[in-house]
Amino acid sequence: MQTTMEAAQQSMKPSSVESHGNAVEVSLQTSLSSGNLDAFRKAVVNTLERRLFYKPSFEIYKGVAGLYDLGAPGFLVELNIINFWRKFFVREENMAEVRCASLTPEAVLKASGHVDKFTDPMVNDVITGECHRADHLLKDYCEKKLEKDAATISAEEADELKNVLAVLEDLSIEDLGRKIKEYGITAPVTKNPLSDLYPFNLMFQTSIGPAGLIPGYMRPETAQGIFVNFKDYYYDNGKKLPLAVAQTGLVFRNEISPRQGLLRTREFMLAEIEHFVDPDNKSHPKFPDVSKLEIRMFPREEQTSGQAAKKLVLGEAVAKGTVNSETLGYFIGRVYIFLTRLGIDKERLRFRQHLANEMAHYAADCWDAEIECSYGWKECVGIADRSAYDLYAHSEKSRVALVAAVKLAEPKEVEKIVITPVKRELGLAFKGDQKKVVEALEAMSEQEAMEMMATLESKGEVEFEVCTLGRNVSIKKNMVSITKKMTKEHVRVFTPSVIEPSFGIGRIMYCLYEHKFSTRPSKAGDEQLNVYRFDPLLAPYKCMVFPLVQNQQFEEAAKFISKELKSFDMSHKIDITGTSIGKRYAKSDEFGAPFAITVDSETSVTIRERDSKDQVRVNVKEAASVVSSMVEGKMTWQDVWASFPHHSSAASDE
Amino acid sequence: MQTTMEAAQQSMKPSSVESHGNAVEVSLQTSLSSGNLDAFRKAVVNTLERRLFYKPSFEIYKGVAGLYDLGAPGFLVELNIINFWRKFFVREENMAEVRCASLTPEAVLKASGHVDKFTDPMVNDVITGECHRADHLLKDYCEKKLEKDAATISAEEADELKNVLAVLEDLSIEDLGRKIKEYGITAPVTKNPLSDLYPFNLMFQTSIGPAGLIPGYMRPETAQGIFVNFKDYYYDNGKKLPLAVAQTGLVFRNEISPRQGLLRTREFMLAEIEHFVDPDNKSHPKFPDVSKLEIRMFPREEQTSGQAAKKLVLGEAVAKGTVNSETLGYFIGRVYIFLTRLGIDKERLRFRQHLANEMAHYAADCWDAEIECSYGWKECVGIADRSAYDLYAHSEKSRVALVAAVKLAEPKEVEKIVITPVKRELGLAFKGDQKKVVEALEAMSEQEAMEMMATLESKGEVEFEVCTLGRNVSIKKNMVSITKKMTKEHVRVFTPSVIEPSFGIGRIMYCLYEHKFSTRPSKAGDEQLNVYRFDPLLAPYKCMVFPLVQNQQFEEAAKFISKELKSFDMSHKIDITGTSIGKRYAKSDEFGAPFAITVDSETSVTIRERDSKDQVRVNVKEAASVVSSMVEGKMTWQDVWASFPHHSSAASDE
Repeated sequence: MQTTMEAAQQSMKPSSVESHGNAVEVSLQTSLSSGNLDAFRKAVVNTLERRLFYKPSFEIYKGVAGLYDLGAPGFLVELNIINFWRKFFVREENMAEVRCASLTPEAVLKASGHVDKFTDPMVNDVITGECHRADHLLKDYCEKKLEKDAATISAEEADELKNVLAVLEDLSIEDLGRKIKEYGITAPVTKNPLSDLYPFNLMFQTSIGPAGLIPGYMRPETAQGIFVNFKDYYYDNGKKLPLAVAQTGLVFRNEISPRQGLLRTREFMLAEIEHFVDPDNKSHPKFPDVSKLEIRMFPREEQTSGQAAKKLVLGEAVAKGTVNSETLGYFIGRVYIFLTRLGIDKERLRFRQHLANEMAHYAADCWDAEIECSYGWKECVGIADRSAYDLYAHSEKSRVALVAAVKLAEPKEVEKIVITPVKRELGLAFKGDQKKVVEALEAMSEQEAMEMMATLESKGEVEFEVCTLGRNVSIKKNMVSITKKMTKEHVRVFTPSVIEPSFGIGRIMYCLYEHKFSTRPSKAGDEQLNVYRFDPLLAPYKCMVFPLVQNQQFEEAAKFISKELKSFDMSHKIDITGTSIGKRYAKSDEFGAPFAITVDSETSVTIRERDSKDQVRVNVKEAASVVSSMVEGKMTWQDVWASFPHHSSAASDE
Repeated sequence: MQTTMEAAQQSMKPSSVESHGNAVEVSLQTSLSSGNLDAFRKAVVNTLERRLFYKPSFEIYKGVAGLYDLGAPGFLVELNIINFWRKFFVREENMAEVRCASLTPEAVLKASGHVDKFTDPMVNDVITGECHRADHLLKDYCEKKLEKDAATISAEEADELKNVLAVLEDLSIEDLGRKIKEYGITAPVTKNPLSDLYPFNLMFQTSIGPAGLIPGYMRPETAQGIFVNFKDYYYDNGKKLPLAVAQTGLVFRNEISPRQGLLRTREFMLAEIEHFVDPDNKSHPKFPDVSKLEIRMFPREEQTSGQAAKKLVLGEAVAKGTVNSETLGYFIGRVYIFLTRLGIDKERLRFRQHLANEMAHYAADCWDAEIECSYGWKECVGIADRSAYDLYAHSEKSRVALVAAVKLAEPKEVEKIVITPVKRELGLAFKGDQKKVVEALEAMSEQEAMEMMATLESKGEVEFEVCTLGRNVSIKKNMVSITKKMTKEHVRVFTPSVIEPSFGIGRIMYCLYEHKFSTRPSKAGDEQLNVYRFDPLLAPYKCMVFPLVQNQQFEEAAKFISKELKSFDMSHKIDITGTSIGKRYAKSDEFGAPFAITVDSETSVTIRERDSKDQVRVNVKEAASVVSSMVEGKMTWQDVWASFPHHSSAASDE
């Protein structure tokens, strides 16, 4: 690892984020190009675990792969990300934020396709039974072969392996199986033969209720809870589109082989936005706000033809159809601004379009915000056009119409199936359930209605499933009239499309840790000290407070400052461990605190800025408000440096 | 329901919370005494569901009992409660807030006692198999009998039934079964006979990993994640006690028969604090801050002897031993302030001590903050002294010492078992696992060490379980020395006690809805309008914004105000439905918005205060800052009323 350039960092202000970014970039960038990734990652992860940003869960019981706990600083970083997300997306766009149940009955996930299709390709070691993800084995094989056998394989072989890696996400389960057989891939470690491939469902199953009769799952995404409530949100929005509903919360995926720390876990924090639009009008009034952004993008064609990602002007990418709508483009732009403001290095951020087979079973188009870290380019935000898939699927299974309507400028003559439930007869037959039967009848598709009409004609009666009642009812001929007629339509009724930006908070957080990590030599030059150069927005503690020695006066002053910081809502940490001030500054840097206040007198204190390590002397009474002004961007470190006496750090620092 | 006194409510300021509380009290209090509870509750719940504060989950699929979704206003209320909790407890006391995994392997919950003891007594309808909670059936039976057969039963019978209700929580499963047989209680609705009682475990089970080999559960509380990490938090706190760790998050309990809406659900938000203390020193330095509070308390003896709850001065309750420690007393006081500041009526809040058998399997003493609502007195916060139960249990099962140490003033002579692992031999035998074996050996209890010494003497070798390795190892005589000797102890090593305030956020939220609900007649007097008299702290929207009619100028002004409100971080909602302004005010009152801004000109707007319905006219540019000042308590409505021209509401309101 290379020491980052320190001289350049005399100021600490929000607008200097970029320059810090560049400085850190040298650090990770150097590691990336020198291939010294393992050492870099180890330094990052060791610091994170030592300072309790996160740690493996249940460690005293040997833990379980893929489960992690956030300690105090990690929790605060997550909270800062979520609070900023809420401000930047939810409040800015007047979205409705909701919290839906995470225990989900099977019917919902059957309709959404997750019970049948939310799978990863699995193979077993035929001797030990150990489970492996087939695509990961193929990826590892190709990468190792290209690296280790570079000298011995032919150019054609190398091209073939590179091509497999490029289209890996696009391979069907059959193709995957064929390649694994062709290359003779065996189980890692044991080298035993592998079983045939089969799909493994990633949802955690449980059962709801004391009798164990309701099969259920822990939700694998937050979105379904929103889709099934669409009708309520639509009514609440005055029956108008577009309409956006947001949700953060834990989701659960039983990964076959969790790895890469926080990047692939079995329980993680997702933040999702479901933006419902008219499929005939995916324009966005605020698109001009982002259309001039130049963003590194990786369209489908560039990937399959072996080209690199390239910078595109967002407005042009939409105009040319590379991105299929303004709304999708708008969210790409907003996600770009969101991530870079948090501190993601814009040179290590790209938007990659999904390949055709790679897309989830529901998606019409999808762009992933990928962030480069020591594990490579990792998907951190998925921005998918899920089309009308989900609402349509739930309408069909539940028989509750999840649709929107717009008034037509001109009424239109159309031949239409008209379903007219005879409410009186239905009321007599179903009493209090009448309303639900009426709704279900009205929600039939044209085809279902035609079939019902035919059956009623021939048999006079038909079995009809009413999902909201959880049972079938018998519909007689006198209970519903189904006719074809030419009618004038005054409204256009349609199933809305949904554009979904879905944020993996844990992945964004881990990438921020890597992008913000750097090292610098200790004063004696005998060791490398770790520094997280977090922007104040992200920093878990805006400030550390150290009484220089343990005495009552200093502790009183520290308590006074702490109280003041609380009144400014400034998260901070008091360190009374009594170790040397140099060690405490080193710890403060490992927490990424932008400022540290040392109480070395009853009347005045020093404030140290993390990146320059410069110190000024400030009155006890002013200390908290000076720090608060800098954190809130009302003052820069340069302003403070110009206004207060400088303090020599020679004696105390390191 | 009675109309609340409106004339008294001319001002809107934080300090007037109490008077609003009293006004509302008339409303619910009247319902409580008039027995008109069902109608009251129906009005509350209808308003909540209509305005999407919450709704049953997955309704289009007929839903699942005990699962609820929060819509936008309900989510914001929950967020306001959690944010205030974080500020009032976590930040104020410098607690560490963490987030632990909710998927939990069985070993952890086996050690904590949940696998064996986290149960409710269940009976089945012997014909239909339907499941019922035995204690609920007994409670319903006694209450109905007392109510319906009041005239026919003898005074002795009535006393007996009242006594059963008083000690219901204290009954063992055998006692419960005996009473159910004795009274001849049958299944509700069907009247079929009931099976014998048996314990039903409330945890949702699943399995972790693709091979299905790791049994696990969704956590039933957040606490265990903290206990198993105690060592990390203790080190991070400079090995000092007290030490408090906080956590909010969802927990999951497979209730036998969920009922009472948000009060008993299968998935709910818990906010827990684990405050670790030296069992020999449960004093609290800040206890004087709360000791003068007069609080309605219900000690164990008053309950069993049939007396009523009574007001006690907290300091005296601790001094007399009614509350067993200052720390427990401190949290009772803090919880009291927390709940009443949110808006809970202090006359309908009491702290009830658990009866001996009622306490959870881990608790040494426990006080519940109970809030009275239309369902009766409901536990909303449990404040338990869990003693050393959890840490001790996890130490024993995991063989990792979860202990603290304090320096003794004087060294002490004691006979001690000294366990000295021979690191060289262990290193040769176990290589990289040496450290974990050493730790496990050192964590043995005195008794375990004595047994190992005996076995090593007789056989020379012993099987030894190392939990952190997940396997047994073979320990030979040369690998460890176990001796008894007189030593001077300089430190006292002990397992800390933990005091745990545990907040059921959903229950607090529901009780707030009831306490803050009131009705008032419409202007025409022909209907009752609903009003949530939320304090600005709690209100989901601080302000509604209405353009009076749909035109571009008014909408521009509304957008300007919305942008300003965003810059002040004021949650608000723009209503462009275009219905009459009276209807929009009625909706604003149902959301409990303290203020509503109506845009009826390009240059000035009206601000309406919810409780008085008075309106002032304010310049467009000032509107947001005036509202913001009132919400933040910098100005009262009276100040505003005195400073701006009054606006007659005659034309527009209702």
